Parts: sequence; structure tokens; C-alpha cells
Amino acid sequence: MNEHDALVFLLSIAVLLGVARLLGELARALGLPLVVGEILAGVLLGATGLGRIAPAAHAFLLPGGVPASMLSGYTTIAVVLLLVVAGLEVDLHIVKRRGRSALTVALLGMVMPMLGGFVVGYLVPDSVLAHPEQRGLFAFFIGVALSISALPVIAKTLLDLGLFKTDIGLIVMSAAMINDLVGWVAFSILLGPMRGGGIDFAHLAMTVGFAVLFAAGALLLGRRLVDRVLARIEQQPDLAPGRILSLLIVVAILGASATQAIGIHAVLGGFIVGVMVGDSPRLRERTRQTIQQFVTNVFAPVFFASVALRVDFLANFDVVLCLVVFVIASVAKVVGCSVGARISGMPWRESLAVGFGLNARGAMEIILALLARDAGLVDDRVFVALVTMAIGTSLLAGPMMKYLLYGPTSRSPASGPSGALDDAATLVRTGAFVPKLVAATSARAIEELGHSLRSAIGDLVEPALIAVLEREMVAPTGLGDDVAIPHASVEGLTRPVVALGLSQEGIDFDAPDGRAARIVFLLLLPPKAYEREVRVLAGLARSVFDAKARTALLQTTSVDEAVKCLDEHSRRIAAAAQGSGPRMASLADM
Amino acid sequence: MNEHDALVFLLSIAVLLGVARLLGELARALGLPLVVGEILAGVLLGATGLGRIAPAAHAFLLPGGVPASMLSGYTTIAVVLLLVVAGLEVDLHIVKRRGRSALTVALLGMVMPMLGGFVVGYLVPDSVLAHPEQRGLFAFFIGVALSISALPVIAKTLLDLGLFKTDIGLIVMSAAMINDLVGWVAFSILLGPMRGGGIDFAHLAMTVGFAVLFAAGALLLGRRLVDRVLARIEQQPDLAPGRILSLLIVVAILGASATQAIGIHAVLGGFIVGVMVGDSPRLRERTRQTIQQFVTNVFAPVFFASVALRVDFLANFDVVLCLVVFVIASVAKVVGCSVGARISGMPWRESLAVGFGLNARGAMEIILALLARDAGLVDDRVFVALVTMAIGTSLLAGPMMKYLLYGPTSRSPASGPSGALDDAATLVRTGAFVPKLVAATSARAIEELGHSLRSAIGDLVEPALIAVLEREMVAPTGLGDDVAIPHASVEGLTRPVVALGLSQEGIDFDAPDGRAARIVFLLLLPPKAYEREVRVLAGLARSVFDAKARTALLQTTSVDEAVKCLDEHSRRIAAAAQGSGPRMASLADM
Repeated sequence: MNEHDALVFLLSIAVLLGVARLLGELARALGLPLVVGEILAGVLLGATGLGRIAPAAHAFLLPGGVPASMLSGYTTIAVVLLLVVAGLEVDLHIVKRRGRSALTVALLGMVMPMLGGFVVGYLVPDSVLAHPEQRGLFAFFIGVALSISALPVIAKTLLDLGLFKTDIGLIVMSAAMINDLVGWVAFSILLGPMRGGGIDFAHLAMTVGFAVLFAAGALLLGRRLVDRVLARIEQQPDLAPGRILSLLIVVAILGASATQAIGIHAVLGGFIVGVMVGDSPRLRERTRQTIQQFVTNVFAPVFFASVALRVDFLANFDVVLCLVVFVIASVAKVVGCSVGARISGMPWRESLAVGFGLNARGAMEIILALLARDAGLVDDRVFVALVTMAIGTSLLAGPMMKYLLYGPTSRSPASGPSGALDDAATLVRTGAFVPKLVAATSARAIEELGHSLRSAIGDLVEPALIAVLEREMVAPTGLGDDVAIPHASVEGLTRPVVALGLSQEGIDFDAPDGRAARIVFLLLLPPKAYEREVRVLAGLARSVFDAKARTALLQTTSVDEAVKCLDEHSRRIAAAAQGSGPRMASLADM
Repeated sequence: MNEHDALVFLLSIAVLLGVARLLGELARALGLPLVVGEILAGVLLGATGLGRIAPAAHAFLLPGGVPASMLSGYTTIAVVLLLVVAGLEVDLHIVKRRGRSALTVALLGMVMPMLGGFVVGYLVPDSVLAHPEQRGLFAFFIGVALSISALPVIAKTLLDLGLFKTDIGLIVMSAAMINDLVGWVAFSILLGPMRGGGIDFAHLAMTVGFAVLFAAGALLLGRRLVDRVLARIEQQPDLAPGRILSLLIVVAILGASATQAIGIHAVLGGFIVGVMVGDSPRLRERTRQTIQQFVTNVFAPVFFASVALRVDFLANFDVVLCLVVFVIASVAKVVGCSVGARISGMPWRESLAVGFGLNARGAMEIILALLARDAGLVDDRVFVALVTMAIGTSLLAGPMMKYLLYGPTSRSPASGPSGALDDAATLVRTGAFVPKLVAATSARAIEELGHSLRSAIGDLVEPALIAVLEREMVAPTGLGDDVAIPHASVEGLTRPVVALGLSQEGIDFDAPDGRAARIVFLLLLPPKAYEREVRVLAGLARSVFDAKARTALLQTTSVDEAVKCLDEHSRRIAAAAQGSGPRMASLADM
């Protein structure tokens, strides 16, 4: 490395990161995923834009040789860490608890696109194939490519719609997690023979064996080991975040090296290590956020911009191909997932919403397309078609879910036909109010609030408590900003029932911001009231949405004061309601 | 980049990071700076260790070619970000307020080592020089190299000794900041002609001009611009941390590119941008910590390990040279700084402590030595001597300061001759106690506590308030963990006076952990009682050191209860006192 190489490298990082972040923020302002802007940055700075308009500037900023190698070092780390962050989002506990519904949705949601993709792969003309003699492999790859999902985009969409902690949300998330696990293993296995130039079944069998062994070893044995090591590190709480960060990165890169060494792509190792470490309850939110912030804001934009640098998007934009890939991908995914959801007992409308939610492909598809292109399996036209499909499906997810769940007009979750009866003030008035919770733990608080509902629901208190506690174990209901909404559906209930409790000391409900809950709504719902659940939950969350409302509520000591306080703020906020709350944006970044 | 290159690159990062972090933690456990262990990792894995014992493994893990370029991309970003973090620690406000004393200390503390280094550079035999014909440049470089300091090591030492927020601490920190600013500019300017192979005065003048212009532009104009941009970004508080992180990194790398392009080293740009952005009050502690955590735990260890990779430390260890460099560096620095501190009015003992504090060279010296070696100005023997000196001076700083300030026996800051009269309980009993502070801001709380001392100090209340408020503006006194100790020395006072106030709601004293203070000690001291200041401050901090003590204290409502509570806990904690508190470790990392 000489001085000039260092200069060019630094400049290229600064320009790629700067432009990608700017366009990313522009995309966000337009309601699009960040990744759309980041890819656009690569299109503008790469072969498509700058390379056409100012070839000399392009050649100076992005030459080959040493600076290119330095940049590829950066993007290699970036893609591994991106998959680590994606893995951290996977919560095996949720998957385990929502196992059956999630599995049905995930399986049908994978099998259909895989079939669809396989058929497309077999029917496309030879001219589309990079290697016509590998049509089988190509078809298989397209199948896998259409079947994966984009956990972060899905999580973001659910958060935006206030669905993240509802039953629909949990099923969608669990299905997406299963989907990703299976999809990445399948893809990584495929990459081996792809590179070899043909299918060598002995070699393929060995790779499959290794991949399954690696995943099983990490998730069964590694998980426990990590948990034990983290427990030891946590004994020095002030040094723990730094140590855990280093450990996570070292283990992730080692995992990536291991999968790379056995002929599977490095990203699988990163992903599996992310799942393995993220599953430990000892990985603190703070550490998770440090790595997520850094990866999202420093590594990922450069990576996604670099994805589009070397491809000419104009010359390789094949409208028919893009349309075919998009339609097949969407139809197969939506139908597969919706049927799965329907079989699990959801109404059709909600099932379709699940389908469109899982249809989002986002950043994950783009990474996969890039790797396939690097491996020589797809040519630039198919690459462009996959990238277009990834963006298109992600853009479609939010509006379609909103339409299906909240109806054709832009009814906000807080209003709606039975909205008047379901607002926070009415629910608290007809429910119960505990101005001073004695409880110090979330379980005790739930019990305390449950018993306060005895006059309202009688003998249903006990089954309700069991349901809520069980639900709380699946995924804690701390929303952050001092609010928690433990809830569950209870057989025999005909309308939503709420008990509101206040705690000056705060009770830990494992909120994403780490703050204890001082306002706790215990919410009981009639069974299978998916749409109503969504509306009531969102309504409760909105009623204490701003800091002033919370402070005021915390000072109330009687049910009348509390109801009045909720009423006023609900009204004010309903008038000003617009989209999602601020705390729902942290996942918007991928 | 092919698959094998990616694998080797990932493996080398994982191994370098893993071993460097492990040995770093081992160093920490032995009471040494992290960087000692990280460099040792490079020594073991590089030419000195693995290269000797297992040349084949060494050649596989750390080959030349593409993987080496990828690794150098990583370390290039690492060194720029390291200097950004160092720059973030510089607080121009403190420098401005403590200007005169700090400037005297800094100037004498730079001039003496520069002279010493220059003389050494002129007297060493030809055989030590990489280019004997460049003896003048070499001598100049050694002068600069001996004159710089290591802000992070110094900050850590001050924290360990409980001196960080005392007057001595502020003077040492300010002097170190001035030192660093001047030192890095001087060094960067030197690098230009070094590389050219001789001094070209026209070129040198131009480089000096550029460097001064760049620094002045960034610190005068850039600072305000950054502040305005950050203010805009802060308008969306939930998105701000990510945006600010990206902005900081982009601007830092652009700054680094700019200095690199004008013939000064990239590190100067990173450092200046760090100072510029770090100075904005809008850069939140959280964002600062995210980047510091990531740089310290993910980038820095690989960089420091790589420093030692290519040098054979055994073959190039020249005992005489190491000793000469170490002795000249230490004597010149300690004498220069001590004389400066004495001139500013400090007693000799405290002045010497300042000298030894500033003598620590730490990671900054190592970066500088590496750059000089890369530029061909020093050979491997001088490089090894500088690294040894950096580590040696850092190790010496803590014990020497402790010895000078707290005496030859290992008296802890809480005990000592007049310790019995200065303990927290006694001070509160003879001072004042406000069980319920009305104030909501730090300034109001200080006023409220000041007025409560009317009966104890009479008309000194007003000058005391002014002094404390002024002192608070220099550097806020929130210690974290709910505790703040606003303090100042007051002309006319003959003994320390304390008012203790409690606030259930908490008052923002800008603590490093971002938590509001619920326990506030207002501490007034007789003037120039440096040693006593240290002891009393440490004593107060210790009296509420553990969470139980704080909870108990917060429940007291009368002065008798409070005194009893403090007394009990002081006793218990004094018995168990060992070294520094947990919150003092965050800066230990460089």
C-alpha cells in the first residue's frame, strides 16, 4: 500500500458512505426502505451513472488493484456483520412457542415460491442463462431465491403498523425466521456445486452434511456454551459490553471462516453465529444496539452501494424478465403463506396480510443475488431482475397489510367501527385501575392486575392469568417509554377488558429501551379477534404516546382521574395521529 | 478477490482480533494498559513469534498480495477512527478555561522533550539512522516523538486515582490536549519532507500553511457548521444517533482524505475532525460511546496487533537505545511539565505528579512510531525503542502519581492524616442537609444548597456560589450512578464544607451514564488544598459508592439519619476499598 492507494481508498469509502447515507435518508423521507437509496447510490456512482458520464472520475475513485482489494476487505466484513445482525433478530423462543402455525406458514410459503422459481428457471430461454448447461442448478437457485424473506423489512413493517407484538405479528416473524434459516442453509449448500461448474453429488452430500452439522452444533451446543461464557463475562458488568462485542465479532468471523473453509459461503457462518449469540438472554440490548448502529450506519451503506457499482443497471434492465420474476415471486409467496395461515385457523383477510408481509424480500435477497452473481451463476440481467423484485416486494408489503387489516380507507388503527367502545378511557372505566402496584416483577404485576378484574370477569381471572403469563414468556410486552401492555386472548370473553396499573418504581417488562414500565395495561381479548386486538393494542399505546400524557397519568390516584386523563390525551393524539411512533423506527434501517 | 483470499482475510482478522483482545484483557488483569497486550499479540503472531516457530502457518495466515491489501484497508480505517476517538476526548472548553496554567505546563512539557530528543537525534551514531544524510529531520522527529502525550492513558490514570474532576486533573488534561494538538500538527508536517527524502523549504512552508489552515478552518468555522447541522439532525431524536454516527464517520474520513491529499498524514484529519465534532454539546454521550466501543473493541486491537506483525522485536531490541530513549523522554517531560506546573502556582509535590501524568505516551506514540517507520524515517531498532518507551512511560504514570499525591505508604484517598475530620458523615453533620431539593436544574440545585450553608459560612455563600457555578461550567460534576459533586475552592475558607441534597426526581448534572443525580454534594474547599481536595472528593464518592448505600441515603429525611447512613456505609466501604470504582473503567481501553 502506498500513499496514493490509501488516499483513493479513504476517498472511495467517504464518498460511497456519504452518498449512500444521503440517498438512504431521502428514501426514508419518501417512505421507502433505506436500502433503496443505498443501492441507488451505487447505481449513480458506478458503471451505470458516473462510469457513463465521467469515466475519468469513475476510474480515479474506483480503480482496480490495491484500492479495490482494500475496499473488498471492508465489504467482506460488512456482509458478514450484516448477516450477524440479521441473525441477532431471530428469536428461537418465539419460533418454538408459535411453532405449529409458524411452521405451516413458513413451509407453504417456501415450497410454493420454490416450485414457482424452479419452473421459471426451467422455462426461461437459454439466452438468459450464464451457463445454459447448468440449467438445473440455475432453476434450483431461482427457487431458493424466490423463497427467502427479509426479516428486518418485515419487522419494520409490523412495527409501523403497530402489529409487532400481536399474534399476527408473532406468526409472521416466526415464519420469517424459519424461512431464513432454511433458505440460507439451502443457498449456501447450492453455492458449492455452482462454483464447481456442475453438480457433484458426493461433494454436495458432504457440503449438506457439513452445513447441517455446523448449524446444529452452533444452535444446540454452541448456544449453551455462549450462554455460559456470557454469564461469566457479565460478572464484571462495566467491562461486559466491550468484551461481549469483541467476542461476538470474533466468533462471528470465525464462524464465517469455518463455513467459507468447508465450501459454504461465509455469510451462513455469520448468520448462524448471530442466531446463536442473539438467543442468549445475557446479550444486552445495549450491546445489540451498538453493533446494529455501527453496521447499519457505517458498514451496510458501503456494502449496498458497492453491490450496484460494477453492474450497468440501464443496459441490463430487462422489463419482461423483471416482471416475470416479480409476479411469480409475489404470487407464489402470497398464496403459499396465506394458505398456510388459513390452515392454522386465521380468517382469510388476516391470512392474506400475513402473505404480503412475508412477501417482502429486502436486503437479504440483494445479498443473495450478489453472491450468486459473484459465483457466476446468474448474469447481470437476472441480477438486476432479482434486485428489482427485492425492492418491489418490500415496497408492497406495508400498504397491502394496512389495506387488508384496516380496510380500504386510511382508517387509523385507533378508530374504526367498534373503535368508540374500545378506546383506552372506556376500557379502563369498564375495567379496573390500580393506582399503586405493589408488585416488583412483571409476573406479580400481571397477577395483581388480573385479580383486580375479578368483579368484571369473575372466574375467567385464572385462565386469563395463565394465558397472559404464557403469552408474556413468548415475548415480553414492554413497549419502552415506561409502558407495558401484557395481553392474551381468553376463551369465553366477549369483549376486550383492561386493567390499568401504575408503579412509581417501575417494573421490568424487558422493553427495548431497557426502561422499567411504570404504566401497565393488562389487556384481555376475546379469542381470534385479530383485527380488534390490533386496534385495541394500538389504541392503548397511543393513549400514552407522548411524555406529557404519561407524566399526567402517573399522577392520577383514582379511576375517574385516570379515565379523564386518558380521554383527553386520546382525543388530542387521535387528532394528530400520523403513522408510527418514534420508537418504531430503529428497525427501519435495513 | 477470490474465495481463498476472502477466507485468509477473515481468518486473519478473527485471529488477530481474538488473540489481541485476550492478551489485552490479560494485560488489564495485571493492571497494564490494554494496548500492551494487543501489541504483544502482534509480536507473538508476527515475525518475532509465529514467523520464527512456524513459518508455514505464519505465511498462510498473513500472506502478502490481496489478503494483505484487504487487511491494510481495515487497519487504515482503524487508525483514522482511533484518532477520531482521541480527538473526541479533547474538550476545548476546558482548555479555554484552564488556559494559562495548562498552556505553561504544555509548552514547557513540549519544549524540554523536544530539545532532549533533538540532542539525542544529533548524537546517536550513524548506524542507528535509516538515512544518515537526513540526520536533521531524524533529530527533529525524535524531538516531536518525545514531546507528545497520550490523552486516553492520562485520562484513565486520573480516573483511577479519583483525580479526573479535580483541579490537578483538569490542568493535566488541558495540557495534554494542547500537547496533542501541537504535536500531531508538527508530526504531520514533518512527514511530508521525510518522504521526499530531504527538506524542501518551499514545500515545507506550504505544508505548514495547509495544516494550520485546515486546523483553523475546522476548529473555527467547521465547529459552528457541525453544531448547526447536529442541531437540525437532533430534531428527530430517534433517528439522530444513527445519522450523527454516519455523519461523523463520513466527515472524519473526508478530513483524513483531505490531509492525506495535501501531503499531511490522514491521521491528522481524523484527529481534527474528532476535536471539531466532539466539541459540540449536541454530540450525545450515547453516540460517543457507540463509536468508542466499536473502535476500541473491534478496530483498535487489530491495528495494534498489526503494528508489531512485521517487525522482529527480538532481533531489533537494542537495550542501550531503549534505555536512552526512555530516560531522556521521561526526564525531559517530567522536568518540563513540573516546572510549568510550579510556575502556575502548584506545590512541588503536586507539580511532579502532573509531570509524571503527562509523561505517559501510550497508544499515540505507537501510532506515530509506526507511521515514521512506514515513511522510512526510522529503522526497526528505533521503532522498537519508541514502542518500549511508550509502554514504559504509561506504566510509570499511575504508581508515580499515586506515590506523590498520597504518600509512600499505600494510603487510600479516603484515609490519611486529616481523613478522620474529612469523612462524608462529619462533613454533612457540620455542613447542611436538604432532604428534598426543590430545584430542577443543576444551577438551581447549587444555589439551593449554597444558601443552606448560610449559617456555616455566612457571607462566603455568594463568592462560593459563583466559584461553584463557574467550576460547573468548566466541566460538569455528575459522576454517574445518581451522584453529583459540584465543588470549588473558595478564598477565605479554612476547612472543607459540604451541603448534601437529595432529589427524588433527579437533576441533570451531565453524568457520563446520562442518569440524573439524585444525591448532590455541594463541596466547598479552602484554596490550593490540592491534596485535601482529592481526598475529600474521593471520600464523598466512596460514601455512596454502592447501590445499597444510595438507596438507604435517599430514604433519609433528617440530618441525623443521613449522617448515620453515611457513617455506616463509609466504614463498611473503607474496609473493603480497593482501587477504582467500576464506572472509572470505560476509558481504560486505550
